Formats: sequence, structure tokens, C-alpha cells
Amino acid sequence: MERSDDEHGRYMRLALREARKGLGRTSPNPCVGAVVVKDGKIIATGYHRQAGTPHAEIHALQAAGTGARGATLYVTLEPCNHFGRTPPCSHAIAAAGIATVVIGMLDPNPLVDGSGADYLRSRGINVLSGILDERCRELNRGFIKHITTSVPWVVMKAGMSLDGRIGFCRGQRAAITGPESHRQVHRLRDRFDAILVGSGTVQVDDPSLTTRLPSGKGHDPVRVVLDSRLSIDPRATVLSQASTAPTLIFCTPQAPEPKRETLAGMARVEVVEAASDGSGRLSLPAVLQELGRRGIVSVMVEGGAAVHGAFLAEELVDHAVLFMAPIFTGGEVPVLAGPPLALGREGAPYLRSVSLRRCGADIMLSGDVVYPD
Amino acid sequence: MERSDDEHGRYMRLALREARKGLGRTSPNPCVGAVVVKDGKIIATGYHRQAGTPHAEIHALQAAGTGARGATLYVTLEPCNHFGRTPPCSHAIAAAGIATVVIGMLDPNPLVDGSGADYLRSRGINVLSGILDERCRELNRGFIKHITTSVPWVVMKAGMSLDGRIGFCRGQRAAITGPESHRQVHRLRDRFDAILVGSGTVQVDDPSLTTRLPSGKGHDPVRVVLDSRLSIDPRATVLSQASTAPTLIFCTPQAPEPKRETLAGMARVEVVEAASDGSGRLSLPAVLQELGRRGIVSVMVEGGAAVHGAFLAEELVDHAVLFMAPIFTGGEVPVLAGPPLALGREGAPYLRSVSLRRCGADIMLSGDVVYPD
Repeated sequence: MERSDDEHGRYMRLALREARKGLGRTSPNPCVGAVVVKDGKIIATGYHRQAGTPHAEIHALQAAGTGARGATLYVTLEPCNHFGRTPPCSHAIAAAGIATVVIGMLDPNPLVDGSGADYLRSRGINVLSGILDERCRELNRGFIKHITTSVPWVVMKAGMSLDGRIGFCRGQRAAITGPESHRQVHRLRDRFDAILVGSGTVQVDDPSLTTRLPSGKGHDPVRVVLDSRLSIDPRATVLSQASTAPTLIFCTPQAPEPKRETLAGMARVEVVEAASDGSGRLSLPAVLQELGRRGIVSVMVEGGAAVHGAFLAEELVDHAVLFMAPIFTGGEVPVLAGPPLALGREGAPYLRSVSLRRCGADIMLSGDVVYPD
Repeated sequence: MERSDDEHGRYMRLALREARKGLGRTSPNPCVGAVVVKDGKIIATGYHRQAGTPHAEIHALQAAGTGARGATLYVTLEPCNHFGRTPPCSHAIAAAGIATVVIGMLDPNPLVDGSGADYLRSRGINVLSGILDERCRELNRGFIKHITTSVPWVVMKAGMSLDGRIGFCRGQRAAITGPESHRQVHRLRDRFDAILVGSGTVQVDDPSLTTRLPSGKGHDPVRVVLDSRLSIDPRATVLSQASTAPTLIFCTPQAPEPKRETLAGMARVEVVEAASDGSGRLSLPAVLQELGRRGIVSVMVEGGAAVHGAFLAEELVDHAVLFMAPIFTGGEVPVLAGPPLALGREGAPYLRSVSLRRCGADIMLSGDVVYPD
């Protein structure tokens, strides 16, 4: 039975809802959701929960049982067709007798490249793809960037005043944004594999960098501190708190050995050496490559000013989320430090398709960063 | 005949539309619109065009002629009851035989204080007031502030980047915002009595500070330059262009006499001396008092950073309009210069009831400024 586009959209939205349950928990795999529909009824759903465990399609097919025969499978991402940690879903789908597969987005992995859909077709299954493609991509920005470039998707996050300040007085911790923005930051953290800050932020703010959600079910991202000379105070909160995630301290080869040993001896702390750039600072591309190598597909950069400035100057930020409090601080701490990023409007990095939303009294502004040639 | 609130609102909106035609042209008077309605038909409209010319009610009553007898008059502001440059409207309304007067807002002038409405009632006229009160006030923010405090309504306007910069490299002119924002700035200028900038802005940007609208019908506000020592280049565009409005250069008593004479000798330029503050800069309250004395009820402060910083620090800004380009500059010129305005979020000036709208790719953000105690 041929279904209308509207019907496809409706079931794909349900599959997306399933997929979202895995957000932040599946890396380096994507989040994927699946729905099995038969005679206009949803007979099973499933989502991918964690790398190394069954894919979304398998969960859904298992729940459907013999009902899968002749049914339509909606899946947000093209079913895999290779033997990895799990057998290929394409084979399981064919074996279950699914008649039609509706795919959200095709697999961005160049090694897959449509082979899952091809296999299904070769087995006489009706295949449609590209249903709510953009929304399926949206959900897996990290996975897509990582699978195609080996480095994580980088999101700049900052809480700032109307006049672009992240603090009032240099060296003093002060909240700029309101409680609703803070809650939203924790919801974001819950979806990221890693949070990254500079050692200055650790020194001034002494942040926890954990996810605190009202439900208490937050997932802690890996904490990453850029600290070329290992100046971090071993009593910093980021090194000592209870968390299921480790803290990685990146330093350059020039970092002092004794401090390195002190830190490396702490529980859930790892000192990671990365190349330095020409001026003795950590090479940001080297840091991102190392994070990618560890299967981290998404990083939220939370500052401070020098870190944001350097990431933008090196054109490494993919997306920005700015929480803007409707206050004027006239403060001493700008959101971006460093030399000007351009000499004029035409050369400056900009946000494409800016989205605006209210977060209590604050404004949340986000978009993809574009670097003009 | 009693009319429903909805009907009152509908006619008051028409009166507001009339009033808007005078925006920026009536100071120190308010903009006022009037509509005469009889038997459910609009028989006349009118608006105040310029100080010293007839009020809105008089225009509408003249247009209505004998039809005004027994009709309802809608007027956005309480009719005047005193003999000023024109005879009182309250008398003209009674003489015309108007049966009902529906008033938007009562006169904020403490000398009037409901006396127009009282007079009408004393003449047996049915009077209603407070219809679309907020929208009527909105239109006359300058008039209300000026009539109650003798100083103009002060609006901070800035075009800035996401990171709160108004320039890339210090001392170099560079546009941050896009063409739609620029058009909107000219629409704003058209409604203001004066634009104010610091001498640094004149030096770096050499702006015209005129109103350029596509229609060519813009009204030029008075240009005000704060230049304590009269450092302005006599060749500055602001001093030499064709404009119907004068340029006022404010200086302190310490400004050099020869330069004062040079500037004062230029056409449409006036040098105005005002008190200096403790540190030799112009006293901003003194500047505003002088502008108010001249019948200027609204001033748009267009920068630069030091001027914006000083106006906010002295709690003189009533409203802010920020045009935010979705770009990162990392530039050297923050929108606010000077010491921090507060030590924390609680003490910082903030915008109340922020309004957000798109201006091409830019975001226009505005609101009333509140200074916490």
C-alpha cells in the first residue's frame, strides 16, 4: 500500500522522537530511531541506546516479531550493511520480511554510501529515502562531522551581556545569564560528548562542568581542560567531583613533569599531551583530532574569551549558541579575546540561519558559523 | 449611543494613525490625532502638524463643520484647556456641539492634570478616557518625559556584532550592520528631535547624521556633538552639509576661544557651552537640560563607546535600540567603554520587556532601560 507524504512524515517524526532518546549516549554511533507500521497501525518502535548494543531497527524488529512480515519500517538513518560490532541491519530487515523501508537520511559514512538501501532493494524491498532528511541530519550533527572528517562537531556556547561581556571584573566569577539559560545549558551538556574550557575559566570560575538536570538523569560529558603548562590547581572542582565521566587535561610537551604526575595520579583524570602551535599554546586542531580519535563526536566549547577567540580565529567553530542576558555590564571581560577576526564585515565569521528564542528574560541565539573565503 | 470597547478601539487606532503622521515634527508638542464619528461613519480626521499650528481636534472639527454637532470625537490625548499659542481645544469642542469625547491618554502635563476632561464634563459632554492608553503613551515618550522632567527622552542606539563590538580596528570606520538596519536607523532618526554623538565618532566615522529615507521626505534631527575641548575638524561632514537642521557643538568653559569663533562662524553651526563634570568632561545632565530648554523632547544617542558608557553609567538612558549583526568581529572597539557598570548581575542596568525583530540578517533588540536601586 502506497502511503502519502504526510503519512510518511508523521511516522518519521515518531521515529525521530525515538531517536532523540539516545541523544548524547550513542557516540561514536549516531542516534537512530525506528518505527514499524502495519495496516496503518504502529506495531513496534525502537532506538539505538549505546554503541556496542543493538541498532534501532533490531529493537523495533524484535518488538514487532512475526508482525514485521509485510510491514513498513521507518528508520531515521539508512540501515547498516556491514558486519561491525553487530550483524548488518539490512540482513535482519530482509529476514524479517519487511516490505517497505522508509529512510530519513542516507548514511553519511563514505564507506557505506547507499549500500544499505541497495542491499534492501536487491532483496525486493521497496525503499524510499530523504523523508525529513534535514531533521534527521540535525539530530546527528556530531556523528556526521566525525564520520566524514574524524574530528568532532564544535559548538561555541557563551552566556553574555548585551554589550558582549561574559564577566564584570577581570578574575571574578559572576553570573551574567539567568536561571532558565542555566537550565538550558545543562540540557545541552546532556547531549554532548565533551565540554571544553580553558585553564583561565577553571581558575576564575572553578566550574563543575557536569550536567545537572531536574530529573537527575543527566549524562556527564567528558570534561576537557586546555592547560598548556598544567597550571591547574589540583584542588579544582573539575578534578575532584563525583562524575561518571573523566576529565582530560590537555598540555603541551613543555608542561612540567612533576605536575603531570600529580594530576595523572588523580581518579578519573587523564593528562593528554598534544602538539603546541608556533607560540607555545596548544594546537587546537591537534586537540580536536585527539578527541575525535577517542570517539568524541561533539564538543561544546564553554570559554573563556581567549579560547572562544582562538577557536573562531582558527575557523574551528561549527555552530554557536549564545545566551544573551538583557543587561549592560560595561565589564572587563569580553566574550572574545584576541586580535580582530577580520578587517571588515565582509571577512568576518557569521551565523547562518540564526534562530532566536527566549530563555526566561534572556535570549538564546544560535546558528551555524560560516567563514567567508 | 453607547459604543462597545471594540468600536472605541477601532476608532482610536485610526486616531493613532493620524497622530503618527506628525511623528518627529511637533516638538515640543506631542503628536496627536483626532477622528470625528457620527452615526457609525467617520466624518472627519485631523492631526497636529507642527508646534504653533492648530491642534488635531481643531483640524478635525473644521473638517467636520456642522456635522460635528452630536458627534463623537476620538482624540489620542486629552484636549488642552489653556490659552497657549492657540485657544483651548476644550472650548472649541464644546462650541462645535460634540456629544461624546473619547480620550486615549490624559495629559501628562502636571499643569493640565485632567482639566480638559473636567471642562468638557462641566459642559455636559460625555467623556471617556484611557482607550488604548499604552499605545498613545508609546507615541509620545519624548513629550511625556520632557513635560514632566524638562529633559528629553534619551534612546541609546548602537549597531554591533554578536560579540558586542561596534568596530574592527580602533580608529577605522567600518560598517557592522547590514542595509536593512541602516534603513531602520534613518526611519528612527526621522522621528527624533536630536541625534547625539561624541567627538570621537565624528573623527573616526565622519558621519552625516542626517535622515536619508527612500521617499526623500525625511526630517533631519538637530545634530549634537559632545566635544568638550572643540577638537572637531572644521571640515567634518557634520558641519558642512546641506540640512534643514542645525548642528550644536557642546563644549566646556575650558574650550579654546579661537576654535570656538571659527566654528560659531559656520552656517547652521552653534557652539553651546555647558558645565564640565569633575574630570573636565562635559556634564551630561547639563547637556540634556540645555537640550530640553530648547524644546528638544527626544534624543537618540548614537555613540561611540565612551558616550554610551557614560550615559549608562550616569543612568541617563531611557530606552535602547540595538542592531545586532550576526557576525563575530573580535574587534578592538566595544559598544561600551568605561569602568564596569556594576559588580554583578543584580546591580546592572537591564532592558525591560525586550522586543526582538529581524532587520534583514540583523536582529533589532529594544527595550526600556531599568537601573536597579
